[in-house]
Amino acid sequence: MAVDVAQLVEQAREGRPRAVARLISLVEGASPQLREVMAALAPHTGNAYVVGLTGSPGVGKSTSTSALVSAYRAQGKRVGVLAVDPSSPFSGGALLGDRIRMSDHASDPGVYIRSMATRGHLGGLAWSAPQAIRVLDAAGCDVVLVETVGVGQSEVEIASQADTSVVLLAPGMGDGIQAAKAGILEIGDVYVVNKADRDGADATVRELNHMLGLGESRGPGDWRPTIVKTVASRGEGVGEVVEALEKHRAWMEERGVLDERRLRRAATEVETIAVTALRERIADLHGDRRLGALAEQIVAGTLDPYAAADQLVAGVTES
Amino acid sequence: MAVDVAQLVEQAREGRPRAVARLISLVEGASPQLREVMAALAPHTGNAYVVGLTGSPGVGKSTSTSALVSAYRAQGKRVGVLAVDPSSPFSGGALLGDRIRMSDHASDPGVYIRSMATRGHLGGLAWSAPQAIRVLDAAGCDVVLVETVGVGQSEVEIASQADTSVVLLAPGMGDGIQAAKAGILEIGDVYVVNKADRDGADATVRELNHMLGLGESRGPGDWRPTIVKTVASRGEGVGEVVEALEKHRAWMEERGVLDERRLRRAATEVETIAVTALRERIADLHGDRRLGALAEQIVAGTLDPYAAADQLVAGVTES
Repeated sequence: MAVDVAQLVEQAREGRPRAVARLISLVEGASPQLREVMAALAPHTGNAYVVGLTGSPGVGKSTSTSALVSAYRAQGKRVGVLAVDPSSPFSGGALLGDRIRMSDHASDPGVYIRSMATRGHLGGLAWSAPQAIRVLDAAGCDVVLVETVGVGQSEVEIASQADTSVVLLAPGMGDGIQAAKAGILEIGDVYVVNKADRDGADATVRELNHMLGLGESRGPGDWRPTIVKTVASRGEGVGEVVEALEKHRAWMEERGVLDERRLRRAATEVETIAVTALRERIADLHGDRRLGALAEQIVAGTLDPYAAADQLVAGVTES
Repeated sequence: MAVDVAQLVEQAREGRPRAVARLISLVEGASPQLREVMAALAPHTGNAYVVGLTGSPGVGKSTSTSALVSAYRAQGKRVGVLAVDPSSPFSGGALLGDRIRMSDHASDPGVYIRSMATRGHLGGLAWSAPQAIRVLDAAGCDVVLVETVGVGQSEVEIASQADTSVVLLAPGMGDGIQAAKAGILEIGDVYVVNKADRDGADATVRELNHMLGLGESRGPGDWRPTIVKTVASRGEGVGEVVEALEKHRAWMEERGVLDERRLRRAATEVETIAVTALRERIADLHGDRRLGALAEQIVAGTLDPYAAADQLVAGVTES
């Protein structure tokens, strides 16, 4: 059934959560109306400040996200939350109150919360997360928090699509630092050592300081990552996190870095969509047995794979 | 400098190692003559039996590969070895004697050994390993052993391109089983528990039996994975591994499974090359600033990413 997209977008902009939920479902499920939705959203995008939060399981991501929501709400800002979790039992669909720890915000009309599961493969998320962010942006969110489990490459990619990336750690979690070593150290603008009331919090801060080379001098154009200690469950230090975020945002705006990041993000997004479209065209060729016929010739030695690929590319680009 | 490809292929088929090395360098480096090389090789391919060997670091992969080489050489067969190792310090180039444990075979003209490093990203290997296998195949190798570290997705993909996949484990390596859980259990046709003189070998075999469900009944068309215990460093059990491989090969040939696997492999290869070619065309658009201009319009909200991707795809398919 065709949806009145213009009406939905209008309702979403008025702050009606069901309309926002519906739009996210349309972009997430790659509905036939996806393009119509994206075209209708475009003029209303570009206002939200997108913050990525990533960290290993157990560092208190959801609690930290919830605390940040409260802090931004106290400033009167509208907040969107996109929780991207490959192990999430939620198959998507519930917009509000879909997670227990978020239940504080379930009845707050200024907060949108959405879980996105991976549905088998992570590649799909790198593609659908930016679209969902666009919906929340167009719906008038001042801040969009994108929460990811910082383990896989695709999640690091999603986090790197944010305006500001927050990396969460907890004391005594060696694997937190290990995960950090694996690439997260390169993407953090703000580091949060949560559960700072536990033993070892200062040691984690020191280790982080050392690994980030914060003692070394930097070029005048380089951002010096901030480290903040929090006890998110009691709201301690959360104000400082918001301060650090605003400082980073101001720093980026002053230097044109925010625009640069957004341009790069848009370019990546377009490339991903284009490559996916071309891949789909190739997959369509499975149907008409053309790929199978080429494979047979390769196995028989009458055709080499490059010449076969030329035929495949020609088939795609002619159609 | 242009190379006389026809002459190189002729020399490789006569068994001249330098010609084989040169051809692999040409396909690995994506030289301008790559297509010429692939076309010249095609008629001579399809004879080699390709065996993938995968396992975590420390299970004795190189020793096992070396022992298998000796066993096949004792049968008078020509053997190619492709060692794919992301952590390998070898940047590629040395064809013979490039690894210490392989030095037994360094002066044997019936053995070709090649290390392939990942050069930064693994995606490249999924693309270049099949081409190198083709060179070894065309050079007259009866058997090609492809050794990979069984950790990443791309390596599992490489292993799955083999006619027969061998998964190596060692007793007392919990992470071996963990790695196996992560997907290797689906790809093994033959399982080798190496270092079987150590404590816990029988427990590993039992655990493997259980995880593979070998006690359960199978359909008549299903291969029942073989488990073999070895002490590769002393050559113990290696004969049984070769037997298990030959049995699996015979089983596949009887049922047409070998052809099926090779057709699927060829199809995947062609798709990979075609997608890479299309990706490169998109990347070329970076150069002429078209992608940058599209990104600017997206950030400004005057264009949505799908409409932008359409333009990108049009740019690619028209050229």
